[in-house]
Amino acid sequence: MIIVMESRATQEDVQNVLERIEKLGLKPHLSRGTERTIIGVIGDERLINREQLSLLPHVENVIPVLKPYKLASREFQPANSIVDVAGVKVGGEEVVIMAGPCSVESEDQLMSTAQAVKSAGATLLRGGAYKPRTSPYAFQGLGEDGLKILAKAREATGLGIVTEVMESSEVELVAEYADLLQVGARNMQNTKLLRSLSKLAKPVLLKRNFSATLNEFLMSAEYLLSGGNSRVILCERGIRTFVEYSRNTLDLNIVPAVKLLSHLPIIVDPSHGTGRHDLILPMSRAAIAAGADGLIIEVHPRPDEAYSDGDQSLTPATFRELMSDVGKISRAVGRRLKVTP
Amino acid sequence: MIIVMESRATQEDVQNVLERIEKLGLKPHLSRGTERTIIGVIGDERLINREQLSLLPHVENVIPVLKPYKLASREFQPANSIVDVAGVKVGGEEVVIMAGPCSVESEDQLMSTAQAVKSAGATLLRGGAYKPRTSPYAFQGLGEDGLKILAKAREATGLGIVTEVMESSEVELVAEYADLLQVGARNMQNTKLLRSLSKLAKPVLLKRNFSATLNEFLMSAEYLLSGGNSRVILCERGIRTFVEYSRNTLDLNIVPAVKLLSHLPIIVDPSHGTGRHDLILPMSRAAIAAGADGLIIEVHPRPDEAYSDGDQSLTPATFRELMSDVGKISRAVGRRLKVTP
Amino acid sequence: MIIVMESRATQEDVQNVLERIEKLGLKPHLSRGTERTIIGVIGDERLINREQLSLLPHVENVIPVLKPYKLASREFQPANSIVDVAGVKVGGEEVVIMAGPCSVESEDQLMSTAQAVKSAGATLLRGGAYKPRTSPYAFQGLGEDGLKILAKAREATGLGIVTEVMESSEVELVAEYADLLQVGARNMQNTKLLRSLSKLAKPVLLKRNFSATLNEFLMSAEYLLSGGNSRVILCERGIRTFVEYSRNTLDLNIVPAVKLLSHLPIIVDPSHGTGRHDLILPMSRAAIAAGADGLIIEVHPRPDEAYSDGDQSLTPATFRELMSDVGKISRAVGRRLKVTP
Amino acid sequence: MIIVMESRATQEDVQNVLERIEKLGLKPHLSRGTERTIIGVIGDERLINREQLSLLPHVENVIPVLKPYKLASREFQPANSIVDVAGVKVGGEEVVIMAGPCSVESEDQLMSTAQAVKSAGATLLRGGAYKPRTSPYAFQGLGEDGLKILAKAREATGLGIVTEVMESSEVELVAEYADLLQVGARNMQNTKLLRSLSKLAKPVLLKRNFSATLNEFLMSAEYLLSGGNSRVILCERGIRTFVEYSRNTLDLNIVPAVKLLSHLPIIVDPSHGTGRHDLILPMSRAAIAAGADGLIIEVHPRPDEAYSDGDQSLTPATFRELMSDVGKISRAVGRRLKVTP
Repeated sequence: MIIVMESRATQEDVQNVLERIEKLGLKPHLSRGTERTIIGVIGDERLINREQLSLLPHVENVIPVLKPYKLASREFQPANSIVDVAGVKVGGEEVVIMAGPCSVESEDQLMSTAQAVKSAGATLLRGGAYKPRTSPYAFQGLGEDGLKILAKAREATGLGIVTEVMESSEVELVAEYADLLQVGARNMQNTKLLRSLSKLAKPVLLKRNFSATLNEFLMSAEYLLSGGNSRVILCERGIRTFVEYSRNTLDLNIVPAVKLLSHLPIIVDPSHGTGRHDLILPMSRAAIAAGADGLIIEVHPRPDEAYSDGDQSLTPATFRELMSDVGKISRAVGRRLKVTP
Repeated sequence: MIIVMESRATQEDVQNVLERIEKLGLKPHLSRGTERTIIGVIGDERLINREQLSLLPHVENVIPVLKPYKLASREFQPANSIVDVAGVKVGGEEVVIMAGPCSVESEDQLMSTAQAVKSAGATLLRGGAYKPRTSPYAFQGLGEDGLKILAKAREATGLGIVTEVMESSEVELVAEYADLLQVGARNMQNTKLLRSLSKLAKPVLLKRNFSATLNEFLMSAEYLLSGGNSRVILCERGIRTFVEYSRNTLDLNIVPAVKLLSHLPIIVDPSHGTGRHDLILPMSRAAIAAGADGLIIEVHPRPDEAYSDGDQSLTPATFRELMSDVGKISRAVGRRLKVTP
Repeated sequence: MIIVMESRATQEDVQNVLERIEKLGLKPHLSRGTERTIIGVIGDERLINREQLSLLPHVENVIPVLKPYKLASREFQPANSIVDVAGVKVGGEEVVIMAGPCSVESEDQLMSTAQAVKSAGATLLRGGAYKPRTSPYAFQGLGEDGLKILAKAREATGLGIVTEVMESSEVELVAEYADLLQVGARNMQNTKLLRSLSKLAKPVLLKRNFSATLNEFLMSAEYLLSGGNSRVILCERGIRTFVEYSRNTLDLNIVPAVKLLSHLPIIVDPSHGTGRHDLILPMSRAAIAAGADGLIIEVHPRPDEAYSDGDQSLTPATFRELMSDVGKISRAVGRRLKVTP
Repeated sequence: MIIVMESRATQEDVQNVLERIEKLGLKPHLSRGTERTIIGVIGDERLINREQLSLLPHVENVIPVLKPYKLASREFQPANSIVDVAGVKVGGEEVVIMAGPCSVESEDQLMSTAQAVKSAGATLLRGGAYKPRTSPYAFQGLGEDGLKILAKAREATGLGIVTEVMESSEVELVAEYADLLQVGARNMQNTKLLRSLSKLAKPVLLKRNFSATLNEFLMSAEYLLSGGNSRVILCERGIRTFVEYSRNTLDLNIVPAVKLLSHLPIIVDPSHGTGRHDLILPMSRAAIAAGADGLIIEVHPRPDEAYSDGDQSLTPATFRELMSDVGKISRAVGRRLKVTP
C-alpha cells in the first residue's frame, strides 16, 4: 500500500501517518519526491482498512499494491484448477458444453431437450427450477418439482445437472439434486449464499454480475475458496453497457484476463450474454477462440413457446450446428471438444 | 404491444402472427405501411410473453406500449404515497433525514453517533448489523447483537431504526428490531427477500441496484406492492459508470423521473452514491433541490477509525452543517426540513 | 510515479528499472516489501512515458502519483478563475444563465427567442449556426447566415452571443461573431480545434464529451490553457450510461469534483444532459445547489416546431419559471442570480 | 413511426395528432386499444422530426419503426460490400491484417517495422502521422514528414498505407499519401470530416467512437455513403465501460450484429480495444471467430521505447505468432488469411 501525501502536508502530518502505520503493526517506508511525499507500507496490506488511512489529515490518496484476492490468484496457485462435475473435467484440455432450457417447464419439455442436447454431444444438462425474474407477474419456476424432473432427466440420459440456487436456506435441498450449483448473476455478491456454498462438497458455477469488475468477481470466488470449497467455475454472462443491439454486452476480454490473473476455469454464457439467438453461434466460436473452458447454452425444443428466454434459446438443430462450429474452433486453438458418446 | 414485420414477410407470415395473437385471447389490429406491416395488439400486454411473439417467422421487432409495472405507476395512483416510519412521514411536505454509522461497531460508538445525529435534527437512525461486503476478509457486522444495540439506541433517543435485512430467512428477526427494513442495492432483485417483505406489516426502504434501470427498480417495488406491502420508500444510491472521480455516479435524474412515473417516495443516499465525504454536502443540497423526499447519510464520530465506509462518512460537525444547508434548500423549493425537537 | 515489480522479479529486473529511470534523468527510490519491491520515481513524472516503463521485464504496474494536468489544477492556481464574457463574469459570486434555441432557424425565430429570454433575465444568448447532427438527413444549421442573425440579435438585445465552432478552419470566422465560442461534446478531444482556440483572444465554453473522464476533460482544458488562452469555462452536459429514462445521465457529481480539483468555472447544460423538457427544471435547481456557476438552457418559442432538440427545449413561459426557481436556490447557497435589467 | 397517446388523451388530442401527420404529407392509421390509443404513420418516417410529434399535447411516446440508416443497411443492399484497398479486398472470403506502429517516429523505426510485418504476412501497413493525444504535452506525430516516410515504406515493401486524417482541411494532403484514410474514434461524428471524405475517390476506415451505439456508427457510415463514397470499412476498437482490467472493452458482439444489419465490412482493432499487449492474441482469434473481416494491429520493434501506445504494441515475434493463430481460426470458420507473398 502506498500513501501519497498532499503537497501542502507538513512534517507533522507525515509523522502522524507513520505513527498510525506502526500502530497497525506494519512498517512504513518514507520517500520524499519533488512534488509529493510518499509513504510505502510494508506488510500484508489486505489486513488494513484503506479508508481509515485515507482520512488522516492531508493524505491525498492511498493506493493498494496487492490484488484484494489471494486464494483465487494465479500467484497463489500457478497451475490451472480442474473442476470435476459428475465426472466431466472443466478447466483442462477439453472444452465442455452445458446445455438445456432456461426453465424446467414440464417433464416432457425437459426430457425432449435433454435427449436432444445429449445427442448433439453436450456433456452437462442445465435447467432452472428456481427462477429470479424481473417481474412478479412472470413465471417463477417449478421449484422442487423442477428439481425432481431434472433428476429424472439425469437418470434417463446420464448427463450431470446444472441448476441455480437462490438462497442459503435452499442450498441443502438443491444440492440433493444438482451436480453443479449455479449462483446467478444477481446473487454474485449474496454473501450468505456464498458462505453456505463454501461449506458444500459440490462444485459451484459462479456467474458474473452484470456490473461486476474483475476484482469483485474474483472476490466472490474468494468467499467460496476461503470457506473451503475449491471447486469453483467462473462464468461470464454479459455486462451492462449503453449498447442497444444486444441485451447485454458479452465481455470476452475477461476470459484471457482471468487466465492471466487466476487459476480458476471460466466458461461463457452467450445466451444471456447477448440475449439474441442470432448472435449466439458467432459469439460461442469467439468465446472458445478467446480461451474459454466451455459454454453454457439455452436450448428449447420450441423457443416460440418457451416460458422464459425464448429470444435467446437455440433450437436443437441450431445447437447441433453450434457443436460442430465449436469443435472446429477448439481444434484450431489446440484443444478438443468433450462430446458425450 | 406492437409487432413490426420484416419487409420480406409474406401474407402467410402476417396471418401466422394474427392467429397467434387471437390464440392468446387478444385482438390484433393490422396496419400496412409503405415499408413495413405493423400489427397492434389490443388487450393487456403484460400477460403476454413478448419473446414468444418475437420468434415467429419474419417478425422484426415487438415493441411494448405499456410500462411493465402497474401498482407502482402514477397512472394507477395519481396521489403521492406517504409512508409512515415510526411516526415520521416520508413523501409528504417534509424532508426527512436518516443518519447514523455504516456499521454498528459497539454500543459506545452507536450511542454517541445516535445522540449526535439526533441533536443535529435527524429523525431516523441508520446502522448496519448485517453487512454485505465485497471481501470475505472484511468486517461482516455484529448480527443480532448489532440489532440489540440499535434497539437500545431507539430507547435512549426515541429515533426510529433503519437497518438492512439480507435474506428472507432473517426478515422476521430483523423486523422485531427495525422500524424500516432496508433492502440493499445488491439485493434489489432478490425476489425471495422481496416476497417475504411484501407480507410484512413494516415499511421497506428499497435501494436501487447500481446497474438497475428505472423499469427494473419499479418492478422490484412492484414485487412488494403486489404482495401486499404498500409502504415502500425508494432510494437512489449511485450507479456504476466509467467515471473515475467518485466511487459511484449519484444519478439525481431518477428523482424527478420517479416523481413523474410513480407515486412512491424517493430518498437519496449521497454517502454511497459518491463514496467521497467531500462530495456529500453539495450532492445532498442537489438531491433536495431535485425533489427528493429525504436523505440517508453515514455519520461516524471518528471516520478515520470506522470499521467500514470511513471514506464516505461525515463527522457530527459536518453533519450539522449538512442539516443547515439542506434546511435552506428545502425552504427554497417550498418544503421544510423535518427536525427532531 | 511508482513502479511495482512482480513478486517473481529478480535483482537484475529491479536493476534494469533503476537504470532506465536514471537514464531518463530522474531519481529512483527503492523499497522492498514482504510481497513486492516498489520503486518510487522522484522528479516530474509528467515528462515520462508511463507505458515504456510498464513494459520492462517483470514490472507489474506503473502508478502515476500526480494528476496529468497542471495549469488546470487548483494546486497550480488556488483562487477561482473568473471568466469575462462580454461583460458578464462567470465563476464569481453570481450565477449566470445562457439561453436560446438549439439552432438558429430564422431571424424571426431567433429574435423572438432572444427577446423572451432577455425579458426573463438571461444574460447571454445561445444559438447554433453550425450543427453536428447524427443523421446526414437532418438539418445541419444555417452556417454563416446563422452567425449574422445572431449578431443582429446581439445588437437588438445587448446580449452576448454563445455559439459552437466545429473545426479549426472556422475559428476565425465564428470568432468575428461570437462572444463565447463553444466546443461541442463531440469535439472535446479535437486537438486541432483546441489548439486554434488556445491562440484566440476570446473565451471558450468547453463541453464535456459524453464519455469523458474528469482527467480527460481537464486535459482538454489544459490544451487551451497551455496554448495561452486562460478564459475557459467548463460545461457538464450528460454522460452515456445504461440508463433508459433520460437521453443522457446528467452527472452533477462532477460539479463539486471540479471545484475541488480545478480553479475553472463550470456550468451545466440540463437540456442536453437529460434530453427531456420535463426534467430540466428540477435538474437546473439541483445543478445550482451542487455549486454550478451557471446554466445553458434551450428555449424555443414553439418547441413542437423546432428544427432540432424540440424535446428538450423550454417554452418562454417555462423558462421564466426556471429563472424564478434558480433565483431561490442561488440565494439558498449564498449566491445570487445575475439578471439582465 | 408509431405514436402512443397517454391514457388521459382526449378525442381532440388525437385529432390534433392526426392533423399534424397529414400536414406533414403522411397518412395516419388509428388503433384504439383498451388502455391506449395508438397512431401509426404510413410513409417515410426518416423525413419526420420525431421530437416535434412527441411534444403535441398528451402524446406519451413516439416510437420509430424503421432504422435511421438506409444506404448502410443490408435491407438496401443484401450482398456484402467488398472494398478494394490498393488491390487488397476487404469484406470477401479472405481475412486481411493491417499492422504497423501506432506513430511514425522515424524512417528507421517505420522501415524496420514495415519489413517485419510484411515478412510475417501482413497486407497493409498502418502508421500515424497525425496523432490525437489526450495530453497536450505528449508526442503529437510527425505530420507531413510522417506521411512522406509512409510513402517511402510503401515503395520499399509494396504494402498499401493506412493512416489517420483528423480534419477536413487535411483530407486532400493525406489522400495524396494514403491508400486507406482512417477516421479515428474521436472523429467518428466529425461531420465536416465525413462530408469531405464522402467526396473522395479513396476508401475510408471508420472507427467506432468508444461510446457510439450501433445506430450512431452506421449513421456516420451513412454520411460517407450518402455523400457518394461507398468504399467504407467499419472498425470496432473498444467501448468505454466500468471494467477495470482493460483500457477499453473490446465489443465483439458488434461484429455479428453489423453482419446482420449492414453490408459493410468490419474489422477489429484489439490493440486499442484492450489496451494490453497480453490480451491481443486471444482477442484477435476471437474477433475472427466472431466473423470479422480483418484486424488492425499495433506492432513496434521495441515497444518499451515506443513514443505512444507501447503498452498495447506487439513485438515482431509476437505478431508472427498472431498471424499463425489467426490463420488457423480463419480456416476453422471457412475463410483463409490473406498473406503477402
